[in-house]
Amino acid sequence: MFNINRKTEVIKLNQPVCLLSSAAVGAVKEKQGPLGEYFDLTSDDEKFGADTFEAAESEMQRLVLNTALKKANMHPKELNAILAGDLLNQCVGSIYGIIEFDVPYIGLYGACSTIAEALALGSLMIDGGHFSKLAAVSSSHFCSAERQFRFPLEYGGQRPPSAQWTATASGAFIMSDLASVPRPQIVEVLIGKMIDKGITDATNMGAAMAPAATDTILKYFRETGANPEDFDIIATGDLGTEGKRITENLLMAEGLDLMGKYNDCGLMLYDLKGQDVHAGGSGCGCSASVAAGFFMRKFELGEYKSILLVGTGAMMSPGSVMQGNSIPGIAHLVRIVQN
Amino acid sequence: MFNINRKTEVIKLNQPVCLLSSAAVGAVKEKQGPLGEYFDLTSDDEKFGADTFEAAESEMQRLVLNTALKKANMHPKELNAILAGDLLNQCVGSIYGIIEFDVPYIGLYGACSTIAEALALGSLMIDGGHFSKLAAVSSSHFCSAERQFRFPLEYGGQRPPSAQWTATASGAFIMSDLASVPRPQIVEVLIGKMIDKGITDATNMGAAMAPAATDTILKYFRETGANPEDFDIIATGDLGTEGKRITENLLMAEGLDLMGKYNDCGLMLYDLKGQDVHAGGSGCGCSASVAAGFFMRKFELGEYKSILLVGTGAMMSPGSVMQGNSIPGIAHLVRIVQN
Repeated sequence: MFNINRKTEVIKLNQPVCLLSSAAVGAVKEKQGPLGEYFDLTSDDEKFGADTFEAAESEMQRLVLNTALKKANMHPKELNAILAGDLLNQCVGSIYGIIEFDVPYIGLYGACSTIAEALALGSLMIDGGHFSKLAAVSSSHFCSAERQFRFPLEYGGQRPPSAQWTATASGAFIMSDLASVPRPQIVEVLIGKMIDKGITDATNMGAAMAPAATDTILKYFRETGANPEDFDIIATGDLGTEGKRITENLLMAEGLDLMGKYNDCGLMLYDLKGQDVHAGGSGCGCSASVAAGFFMRKFELGEYKSILLVGTGAMMSPGSVMQGNSIPGIAHLVRIVQN
Repeated sequence: MFNINRKTEVIKLNQPVCLLSSAAVGAVKEKQGPLGEYFDLTSDDEKFGADTFEAAESEMQRLVLNTALKKANMHPKELNAILAGDLLNQCVGSIYGIIEFDVPYIGLYGACSTIAEALALGSLMIDGGHFSKLAAVSSSHFCSAERQFRFPLEYGGQRPPSAQWTATASGAFIMSDLASVPRPQIVEVLIGKMIDKGITDATNMGAAMAPAATDTILKYFRETGANPEDFDIIATGDLGTEGKRITENLLMAEGLDLMGKYNDCGLMLYDLKGQDVHAGGSGCGCSASVAAGFFMRKFELGEYKSILLVGTGAMMSPGSVMQGNSIPGIAHLVRIVQN
């Protein structure tokens, strides 16, 4: 009775969606990391001049979107809508960060996959023809995440080696229907499924997310017939050392060798030997800032021509874990190519 | 330098999006209310057979989406994606409710506006041509909301008259590109802005949301030139007695008289005189179940031909209120007409 028009889960956009500009904001640890120079703005004050860590996260979103708008020579009023999200309860980081722009708002919750979710949905909205300019924004803050998901900082809770370090960072993209501009463009998107393989350890979220990352990456290569060598980087964000290793093993077991093209934003943002981040970075701001800062600069330098950004999220709350639930993962994919 | 193609915030879809089916699930108070007969399923057990209130909320989402799928004679695999959200921290009500469907997942956070946000985004996605069938789902549970946002039930906290009662309810819609089916269709959508008028009282969220509802409704009528008499109902969800009164006053001050067509889902779900709900119902499940249950039945009975659903959300967390933040509101609109 019912037809499904589209046989694949990979969606090829009718018109490429231009990433007109982007910006990345971070704090001290992010500045000191290997990608420090790719941030537009880093603050030595973890509170970004605000009274609370939560307000600091909102301030990061304000700063990063204002910076991206300035780089695109745009006024906020030119945005048709802003898609945003973060890790805080009821996504208040985004709410208080975005409200001042006075633009239609689409609130998302995708955990650390949020920037990929926002880029994917925004691309679909622009491709649909009703939107000309959209912004995608996400953020995380180490201190607001610690006190909400784990312990107050003052408690000094010990972290196991598999734990990741929530990035104090934010990334923003301005998306546009101007397909002719010589800028990076989103050309394909894949909305991921939640996959739960029974991981209950909230200090090993890489393991919880790896099956979803695997599912999304496999689906992409099987459906498109693309070759990993077609890409400058295939980046998950953010699986850390554990999740990356598991993903590589799962993909190899399925016969997919990413030929050294695979890396994880959480492993790129920090120096794992020199900085005390255990299994690597995480948080909605990690892949957002690595993509909006480092990847976009690589495109501008002509060093990247085509990448896959696979945003991964661990779908849980402290309460759901305490109630004994396992942690599903999700992974949304966007393919970005230079126009 | 940059063009904005669309001059209005109201988006008229190129193709109407069919609401192929819908379903509503509730509990005892919802069954006893004036709309009790319009629920597909009500449970006398507030826990829906689950161990916790949070798991009960997930169970409601499973039940309601399964019911809607069954009414559409569809298998979950026919869905291209599910858009869902709820009020729980990190939206775990939706996560554990939706995962079993094994379908691409788009997590939203729009507080009580979530079902309208999902219907609006889903309509845009189908209109864009890459999606054939989508589901929109949201839920709330009185007991999970009380312990997360306010106090444990056992504490017996007193509620002021302006407080609303979080509905234990869930609603789901199956959206389709089958524009020729004689079913209700979404024809216009409006993505709302967050508006903050400085309300800091978390027990008066109607007041916090009323300015956003006003903004969205005014914008709709000014941009389209529509007449309130064109609609069988203009329904906000969920402002309660306080918010509805403020909205009416604000609209009248702007010269817009809704001519007795205006009501609020939170005031329709319960009997405000006979049921102890203070200012009326609220929660992501309130407008979702009223729309998916009552409004859709009214269309099926031929009593409704055209309605405006204005989903309203109070964007806050317990933490943000404790930190002294005021509460922004948001309101997303969809116009539904009978085909």
